[in-house]
Amino acid sequence: MSKNDIQMAEACTETMRVNDDASRLLGITITETRPDSATAQLTVIKALTNGHDICHGGFIFTLADSAFAYASNSTNHATVASGCTIEFLAPGKIGDTLTAIAKKRARGQRTGVYDVDVTNQKGDLVAVFRGKSYQIRGQVIPVSGEQS
Amino acid sequence: MSKNDIQMAEACTETMRVNDDASRLLGITITETRPDSATAQLTVIKALTNGHDICHGGFIFTLADSAFAYASNSTNHATVASGCTIEFLAPGKIGDTLTAIAKKRARGQRTGVYDVDVTNQKGDLVAVFRGKSYQIRGQVIPVSGEQS
Amino acid sequence: MSKNDIQMAEACTETMRVNDDASRLLGITITETRPDSATAQLTVIKALTNGHDICHGGFIFTLADSAFAYASNSTNHATVASGCTIEFLAPGKIGDTLTAIAKKRARGQRTGVYDVDVTNQKGDLVAVFRGKSYQIRGQVIPVSGEQS
Amino acid sequence: MSKNDIQMAEACTETMRVNDDASRLLGITITETRPDSATAQLTVIKALTNGHDICHGGFIFTLADSAFAYASNSTNHATVASGCTIEFLAPGKIGDTLTAIAKKRARGQRTGVYDVDVTNQKGDLVAVFRGKSYQIRGQVIPVSGEQS
Repeated sequence: MSKNDIQMAEACTETMRVNDDASRLLGITITETRPDSATAQLTVIKALTNGHDICHGGFIFTLADSAFAYASNSTNHATVASGCTIEFLAPGKIGDTLTAIAKKRARGQRTGVYDVDVTNQKGDLVAVFRGKSYQIRGQVIPVSGEQS
Repeated sequence: MSKNDIQMAEACTETMRVNDDASRLLGITITETRPDSATAQLTVIKALTNGHDICHGGFIFTLADSAFAYASNSTNHATVASGCTIEFLAPGKIGDTLTAIAKKRARGQRTGVYDVDVTNQKGDLVAVFRGKSYQIRGQVIPVSGEQS
Repeated sequence: MSKNDIQMAEACTETMRVNDDASRLLGITITETRPDSATAQLTVIKALTNGHDICHGGFIFTLADSAFAYASNSTNHATVASGCTIEFLAPGKIGDTLTAIAKKRARGQRTGVYDVDVTNQKGDLVAVFRGKSYQIRGQVIPVSGEQS
Repeated sequence: MSKNDIQMAEACTETMRVNDDASRLLGITITETRPDSATAQLTVIKALTNGHDICHGGFIFTLADSAFAYASNSTNHATVASGCTIEFLAPGKIGDTLTAIAKKRARGQRTGVYDVDVTNQKGDLVAVFRGKSYQIRGQVIPVSGEQS
């Protein structure tokens, strides 16, 4: 991957991050973006739990979905999620730091598949997520004449 | 469905709701619970959007997942999600009220399948969600000698 | 649904059926096609079992996938499957006749979602399947100037 | 992995293969089994196509599902599929040899997750499959007092 590609990935992340109220609400941070991959982190606090003192599955999904979104928009083609699957393997406990790493498995003209693994600070696998992306018209950063 | 079953479903919801910080953080309300079904609602505000002024997919998932959780725990057998799928069909816009209705499709000794449809106030289908449940030991409300 | 739409759905099925060696190999028959829906049947014989005298899950999937294919191609827009999920709920035993009914849940410009329920002759739910369709260029029956 | 574990995996495969009429019908061969992993192959012939001269998606699923079954039964705990997802990425053409490699991602007391990649002879990714396993009572090879 070229230096330009990495810079583009990081610039896409900066542009998206500004308005990403949703990730901010939960405390999700994007710690790295590369072409077609991204890493996101979340620390489980009480406000994110569902009453068993474990992280609501929806927020583990949201963490993975955010990593997927930043990875699939990292080459400056505006892309949305068309569907996702998640398998829950271990609970996220209060105090845990969860890390989601999204990687491209395939991408065609319009559609793509990204895999996201979510682990805790001990390296245990907390969830596996698979996202299907759909490329729409437009660019993340309008740098040039768009062609979709 | 008997009156007792309905009362049990509503009592399970009350018990779970007390500690459900996660649903409260987003403003999710459980508007009805019946044996093996539940309805949840969420109004999309700016804090829930991802920068395109549309609801983060993770929060649409969380809404559906909450309806699924209340439905699958409505008969007082403690149940968790083992995995879920979601297809995103239309965006949730600021001001939209989203309604998720969860219904049981199947339930065996340990595992079950619930379908959740998410619609907006116009009746448009926003997402379809399918949750796989796994019954663990224990009861939502410890009313009697448990047998798992 | 108009008489013309039904005739078109049935004509699409006839056209597809001629070359559908795969469904024929298993003994799958398409018993009805309507606009955006289709019904397929399969009788479980020994050759379709996996050694426990139960139908190989792959063939239950194939039955559902066939119903999905005929439903999603019933309006004469050439359509392929982009992805599918299946949950197995009960075994298909030797001698069972399995019926798969596919119905459209949503369809946009390019992508769609179809649900397929598979039941046996007693009405037991054997599997639930969800198919994601992707509309490609072309028509099932080239009746007119195509526009994709 | 110990020599004993490999021998057990191979013995489980031999036992299952004897009665696996379904895989035989399609021409699926299991080319390698190791503890928690398995490789299966299929050559696409006309009888497996759906009329566009491409392999029926159901048979690509069946290939992946077979690899998953042999992988998830390789440690002599009888295991069935509870649900699966597949994303179709490229067609299987007549004459193609498809290879499915199944690997364990996670396995708890009862449930597990296996990923299966399907590639063609050129190394192109044809499909990605994810299988959820459920451990039932019993052993593949009844070698000792079972405990489930």
